[in-house]
Amino acid sequence: MPELRRDPVIGQWTIVHTDDSLGPDKYEKEDHTARHAATCQFCPGRERLTPPEVSAVRNRGTHHNAPGWRVRVVSNKFPALKIEGELDYRHLGLYEQCNGIGAHEVVIETPAHEKSMADFTQEEVLEVIQQYQSRYKDLTGDRRFKYIMIFKNYGESAGTSVEHPHSQIIALPMVPKYVLEEIEGAHYYYEQHQRCAFCDITAQEQADKARVLSENSDFIAFCPFVPRYAFECWIMPKTHYSRFSEMHDPEMNALAGILRETLLRLKLCLSDPSYNFYIHSAPVNSGEQKGFHWHIEIVPNLTKTTGFEWGTGFYVVRTSPEAAAGFLRQASMDGILTTMGK
Amino acid sequence: MPELRRDPVIGQWTIVHTDDSLGPDKYEKEDHTARHAATCQFCPGRERLTPPEVSAVRNRGTHHNAPGWRVRVVSNKFPALKIEGELDYRHLGLYEQCNGIGAHEVVIETPAHEKSMADFTQEEVLEVIQQYQSRYKDLTGDRRFKYIMIFKNYGESAGTSVEHPHSQIIALPMVPKYVLEEIEGAHYYYEQHQRCAFCDITAQEQADKARVLSENSDFIAFCPFVPRYAFECWIMPKTHYSRFSEMHDPEMNALAGILRETLLRLKLCLSDPSYNFYIHSAPVNSGEQKGFHWHIEIVPNLTKTTGFEWGTGFYVVRTSPEAAAGFLRQASMDGILTTMGK
Repeated sequence: MPELRRDPVIGQWTIVHTDDSLGPDKYEKEDHTARHAATCQFCPGRERLTPPEVSAVRNRGTHHNAPGWRVRVVSNKFPALKIEGELDYRHLGLYEQCNGIGAHEVVIETPAHEKSMADFTQEEVLEVIQQYQSRYKDLTGDRRFKYIMIFKNYGESAGTSVEHPHSQIIALPMVPKYVLEEIEGAHYYYEQHQRCAFCDITAQEQADKARVLSENSDFIAFCPFVPRYAFECWIMPKTHYSRFSEMHDPEMNALAGILRETLLRLKLCLSDPSYNFYIHSAPVNSGEQKGFHWHIEIVPNLTKTTGFEWGTGFYVVRTSPEAAAGFLRQASMDGILTTMGK
Repeated sequence: MPELRRDPVIGQWTIVHTDDSLGPDKYEKEDHTARHAATCQFCPGRERLTPPEVSAVRNRGTHHNAPGWRVRVVSNKFPALKIEGELDYRHLGLYEQCNGIGAHEVVIETPAHEKSMADFTQEEVLEVIQQYQSRYKDLTGDRRFKYIMIFKNYGESAGTSVEHPHSQIIALPMVPKYVLEEIEGAHYYYEQHQRCAFCDITAQEQADKARVLSENSDFIAFCPFVPRYAFECWIMPKTHYSRFSEMHDPEMNALAGILRETLLRLKLCLSDPSYNFYIHSAPVNSGEQKGFHWHIEIVPNLTKTTGFEWGTGFYVVRTSPEAAAGFLRQASMDGILTTMGK
């Protein structure tokens, strides 16, 4: 008998196949062979082909917009939004619109064209996270922005058009719908219980253990009880912070460890799947968000979303999170995590 | 300058590229060559390979579960939900769950394995719509069900696993999230204005004309002002009905005409894209839904959804609905619509 499960924050229902969960080998594999290294605009030596560097982690003695960087942030050459101008809110009959003002930056995560984040050292992941946070803090200074979205698309089916490892940062003049729903749901839960929904979820996952992948001093990684996708993983800070920018250096190091480990588990377990991850954080340039708790959601791209899901927001997941967590935990048992210098 | 647009019903924001809209030729093509006709379980003569027939449109003198049908409805062999049992709502700590009770049926739209709905005659589309409505009414009789979802996935990237033309019907014991949002948004609009949001949208589109594809006695087809996807099309009944089941025979015939025409426009304009369509209708076994207005949304599957969209519910559409409507209207100018017996 499949189960219907309801998310305690946003009210999302998911059909979860609990008795007959599909194993990782039942999902299609994707080929990630790099094909465009010879012409890649993100590779060292081609810095002039991107917009100028906004920020970078560089080896000593190297120069802006020249090789020698380990992480490099540039404006997106084809931005979804433009940085200059006024919002100019207006109406067209019953429709609302405004100018597409925002920032759109690319974080080039490594000089190595063919290295995926799952294969980074913890130190390399840390340097990327530090750039995320530094750009987040800087963009917060622009009072037009209300939300800063950090996300990564890995693999063609997850929407990547450039194969060189990179993430993206978009600053928006309004809080997007899904985030707003999560914030409102978390606020409602807080008003009812005087507790943070995500702190309660974390405590329940720690006690239950069935869906937990791993834990360190500051973070816990688990498969959510109400996923939208098979093998969906969440990384939750144990300390209640509303915003990604509130995290300190030792915590960033712990995050680098658990993010790298979770991506490696997905890679080993599911033969290097395409995935998206994104950071959910409270809006910026707004007041305190007591009930909100920032976190990362990682969504492997294993199945096609169908009309049923588009039309309803009602998802069908054919591997239960309990089964998925079992497979993902198993992925570390062969010792590869250890040999790769965890 | 891209534009930010906000949907008046659900509050969805979309980034729309208005100045530099991509033409239909800028999207990737998909191959829909039929490969599995020889073993297809939906083809005539293999009726015994599906669960027994729930309903069918048959040629005179032909028998249940035997050839001679023109449209055939069967239970899904691998249902997302089970029809038998009790819901048995329960809690696991802060999570809610219940048994996966529901109905899941398949509408086999034609005996012809390689014929797509865009190439049906109006009469053939009508017979499919009549089956949709007859099953909708019948499933409404089961008081456990609160929502009946009718949808179609066309093409592999839209989530089809069987290439023989078919649609699906799922009856759910709760109202799914996106539909609930639309109902709540429409209700709020109604309370504010004492008018239906969808009636107002229809009137504005008729006056503006920029996004309209076509109109007949009972329906209007247009590209919505705030799409989530490039070339998204909506078909809206001109008469305010909350539910799909309220439509009468002459209106079903008008719907068959405009649905067929819209699918053919998409096929001609975008070289036979994959798509999903789904019918949004008010919940069943509930009271009157004054502010809600049933309609069909058609979403061609031209781009990959990325982490940004997953993470935010904030979409980027690189062809404005005004440009899309222009291209789709053009698709009829070459006379193919006429020659195919419109």
